[in-house]
Formats: sequence, C-alpha cells, structure tokens
Amino acid sequence: MAVYVEVSEDVLGGFLNQFDTGALVSSKGIVEGVSNSNFLVETTTDRFILTLYEHRIDPDDLPFFINLMEHLANKGLPVPRPIRDRDGVALHRIAGRAACMIQFLSGVSVSAPTPAQTRAAAAALAALHLAGASFPELRANHLSLPWWQQTAHDLGAGLDRIEPGLAGFVHDTLRHLTMKWPTDLPTGIIHADLFPDNVLMLGDQVTGLIDFYFSCTDSYAYDLAVFLTAWAFAPDGGAPMPEHMNAALQGYESVRKLSAAEHAALPLLGQGAALRFLLSRAQDWLTPDADALVHHKDPVPFANRLRHYVHHAA
Amino acid sequence: MAVYVEVSEDVLGGFLNQFDTGALVSSKGIVEGVSNSNFLVETTTDRFILTLYEHRIDPDDLPFFINLMEHLANKGLPVPRPIRDRDGVALHRIAGRAACMIQFLSGVSVSAPTPAQTRAAAAALAALHLAGASFPELRANHLSLPWWQQTAHDLGAGLDRIEPGLAGFVHDTLRHLTMKWPTDLPTGIIHADLFPDNVLMLGDQVTGLIDFYFSCTDSYAYDLAVFLTAWAFAPDGGAPMPEHMNAALQGYESVRKLSAAEHAALPLLGQGAALRFLLSRAQDWLTPDADALVHHKDPVPFANRLRHYVHHAA
Repeated sequence: MAVYVEVSEDVLGGFLNQFDTGALVSSKGIVEGVSNSNFLVETTTDRFILTLYEHRIDPDDLPFFINLMEHLANKGLPVPRPIRDRDGVALHRIAGRAACMIQFLSGVSVSAPTPAQTRAAAAALAALHLAGASFPELRANHLSLPWWQQTAHDLGAGLDRIEPGLAGFVHDTLRHLTMKWPTDLPTGIIHADLFPDNVLMLGDQVTGLIDFYFSCTDSYAYDLAVFLTAWAFAPDGGAPMPEHMNAALQGYESVRKLSAAEHAALPLLGQGAALRFLLSRAQDWLTPDADALVHHKDPVPFANRLRHYVHHAA
Repeated sequence: MAVYVEVSEDVLGGFLNQFDTGALVSSKGIVEGVSNSNFLVETTTDRFILTLYEHRIDPDDLPFFINLMEHLANKGLPVPRPIRDRDGVALHRIAGRAACMIQFLSGVSVSAPTPAQTRAAAAALAALHLAGASFPELRANHLSLPWWQQTAHDLGAGLDRIEPGLAGFVHDTLRHLTMKWPTDLPTGIIHADLFPDNVLMLGDQVTGLIDFYFSCTDSYAYDLAVFLTAWAFAPDGGAPMPEHMNAALQGYESVRKLSAAEHAALPLLGQGAALRFLLSRAQDWLTPDADALVHHKDPVPFANRLRHYVHHAA
C-alpha cells in the first residue's frame, strides 16, 4: 500500500510522448502492491497502470516478468499486456526507477471469495500453467526450500515472539520438508502468489490475473498448493474451508488434470506454501523497517495453515 | 496520502445498489488528500470518487461541503458534483465512516504551474467567489486569527526547533496581525486551500476545482492571498515568482475586480495566509502522530513566504 515517488505531469507527459497511446488526461496514484509505486493513467485513447519498481524487485528480473505477461496476454489470458513504445520498448526509466506501463483491466479483487469464484480462479490458474508451457524463459524460484532454510535460520528464536513454540515447529517442519520435498513433479511457469487480491473478478468471472512479480519456474502442483493456502482457509484465523478446497481442486482439474503423484504431493506442498508465507510475513514482522508506509501482514494465520497441513499429513 | 480503510467489493456493491449509477466494474484505492480514504470507482455507466471521511473532518460540516459542491456544479463550475441516491441522499455511511460519492473529473494537478496556468486557476477562483455568492449556508473559518493565536501559543518555543528565532518572529507577526487584521472586506464563500494540487488542469484549462474540506465564509481577498501564497512562490524554498504573482492578479481581476481596500490589504492578508500554513504544518511537524501513513509537509517554505510578506509590508 504505497506510492513511493511523485511523478509530475510534465514527466508523465514526456513519457507518454514515446507511445502511440494519446495524450495525458488523468493520473492518480493508486494503492496497490507493497513493492512498487502504481499510477492509474488515463490518456485520450485508453487507460493504463504505470508501475515504478522499488527496491524489492531485482531489475534484472523485469524483462522476464514483462515478456511473460505479454506471452500470456497473447495466449488470450486475462493478463495485463505491457505497452511497448514506438521503438518496441516496454521497460523504461522514470524518476530514477525502472518503469513499465501495462493495460488496465476491469474487475475487483474479492476479499471473501465464494466457492464459485474460487473454482473460476483455480481454473484460470490451470489455464495460466498451460499457456505458460510455451514460454521459453526460465526464472528460479528464489523463495523455495533454500530460502525457507536460510530465513528460518536468520529469524531463529525470534519466531517465538510471534507465537511461543513457533521456532521449534518451523524447525521440525523444515527438517521434514528437506527430506521429502518432491523434485520430480511437472514443472513450468507458475504465478507463485495467486492470492484473491491478485485476481480481478466481475461476479464469478475472472477478468484479470495480476502482479506477476513472484512468477518463476517451479512445479505446477506447488502453485496450486499456494492457491489452496490462499483461497481455502479463512482469511482471518486460517481455519480450513473444505467447500472452497473442493471447488479449487475441481476448477483446476476442469482445465488441467493432476497426476497421481501431484495429488499425493499436495499436503506436503501445502506445508511448503504455508511456510513460505509464514516466513516472509515473519521476516517483515520481525525486521525493523524504515519503510513505515507498508502495513505488514500478520504471520499467525499462516502458522495455523501450516499446523493444519502438518496434522493432515500425519 | 492514504487509504485508511478497506472497503470490500460486497460492501461497495451494496452501497452502489442505492444509486442509479450501474453496477461495480472496478475500484482502486487512490492516494489523494491526507484526511480521507478515497477510491476511484467505475461502474457500468460512469466513474466516481468515493470518499470515506476520517477523523480530521467534523461530520457536522459535511452537509455544508456537499451542498456547496452541488451548488457550484449547478452554477457550471468545474466542481465535482456529489451523487445523490434514489432517495436524494448524498451523505452515507460505509465501514463506520461518513461517506460521499462525487463525480470523477479529468485533468491532472500541475506540480510547477506556468504563469498561463496560474492565470487560469486564479480566474477560476474568482468565478468560484461569484458563484458562491448565492449559496445560502455559512461556515466560520476555524483556521483564522483566533486559531493562529491559539496554535502559536500551544507550539510556543517548539517553533524554534523548526528554525532558530521562528517563535519570536511568529509572535511579533501575530501581534501585528491582531491589531491590523481587516474585518470589513467583501466576504462570502471561499475555498481557503486552492493550492495547485487542488486544481485539475488539461494544458492551460482548468478542468476541476477539488477538495472543498476547508471551504468556509471569509473575505474573498484572503482567499486570493492564500492562492498567491500557494502559486506565486517557488514550491521548494519559497522564493517569490513575480511573473506568477502578476498572472494570478490579472487572472483573478479578469473575472472579479478587487476594490481599492482589497488591493491595499493583500500584503497583510498574505502574512495571514503564510502564517496559517506555517502553523498547520508546524503543528503536524512537531506533534508526534500515530498516523505514520501521512507524509508531513515541511513548514520552512511558509516561514520564507511570511518573511517575504513582512518585509514587503515594512
């Protein structure tokens, strides 16, 4: 939730001159994402989201994200298309930051999705997996097992400040995951962060899949496990919601069938998914950050999810 | 710069059902104002700004602001029209806050206005003064002389932490203003905060006068003095910009002629205007505020403006 930098109408007008998108009509800083500054820009021809990338994103990853969004949009997915200037360039610099303008998509993020909405979003995730299979670029998942190990080690006993006993629980879970983490599941482009706030909907229809800044190459079933962790547990406490869980699995498999190995791996992958968000939130929570503009999210609901998956697997 | 509260698509959809404005298509929290939460809401028929009012605004003042905006819009001014529901009600409650939906206006706030833009904005201010003359409601200016006296007293020597000697300078200026403040100038509806960020423009054309939450009944020439203080000094250091000053006076008088008494009072009114923003910024600056989301603005440029006016009057 932030806009870290002001962009004057002069700078914005000059930027738009490089494109065939018409003249500036309106620009509003919008509250979207935590790592970037975003502006809803209207021109005489259309509307766009202009993103200025801040420190949390490695500039070297930007061509991957931009090319992937364009690939998926070309495949007909409701993914915002990066806008290229007259020279075909999508990645620019504004106010000292890397910047990219993308298509504006209609729809709203649903804070408490119904099972029907969950089914539709899971089907869109499967469609993303299929469409991404022909994307030629690779990007490692930097927030997978080695990162969990390193982060849990760095946070150490600090985790007990979030919840007594959490450090030991995370340690035990990690030891188990380190031995059992599957490496032979079908792999390709994954979104890796498809929470309800990254899906735009109108009613039960998915109108946008957004925020590709964690997308990478990893197992499809892990991406589904992230999705289940995000959509099939109560947003506040983290209690499981079986109806949403079933809707998600049905929706996903209506587009892409899971193999028996993928099915069998889901509870373990769920532990990994819950741990990934537990650790990133714990890191934000426990690390004093000069950036007071960011509202840190509570890690506890993901400790509850992790407990659920661990008990479910036992 | 803030959105203090989340409004779910459920709540927003239910709210929109009371209006003839169509169904929800998109909603983005926008970074506008410091006292309110604002959302750019798109429906199947149009676009709107939905404002949820936070603690800095007295709910009892809201009917005045809303009726005034409607009055000015009816008079043909580029002022956002409050949207009334099917029962004719403009003021609602959402998420425990007073809320109002207003018309979306095109245009961008100009960070470094040219003299031509300054002239156009000053002419719009004069038009606002003329159109407001037939508005029947009154609202006292709560940020005038008595407030300056009280605030300077409360801040006391703390002002010297902003700039050595500032407390004494403010004290001396206030004593002078207390003796000399004019009370017999033409009075009516004033905006009281028409800084460049509250004017939307496309090129040299004014497309929106916004943020009426300081508007009140006071002398027109004081409103012009606020305008000059905002537009005719360099935004960073506060050095006077004579070309902008002349453009503003010409623009204003192209629509409403100043009387000789108003002309003569301008340097003194300018002291008051500079002091008003110096003190409110100093208060924000010196008062520890739990609300870390608000970027406080530097008071020093208004100390520089005040010095300019005091020297100019001497």
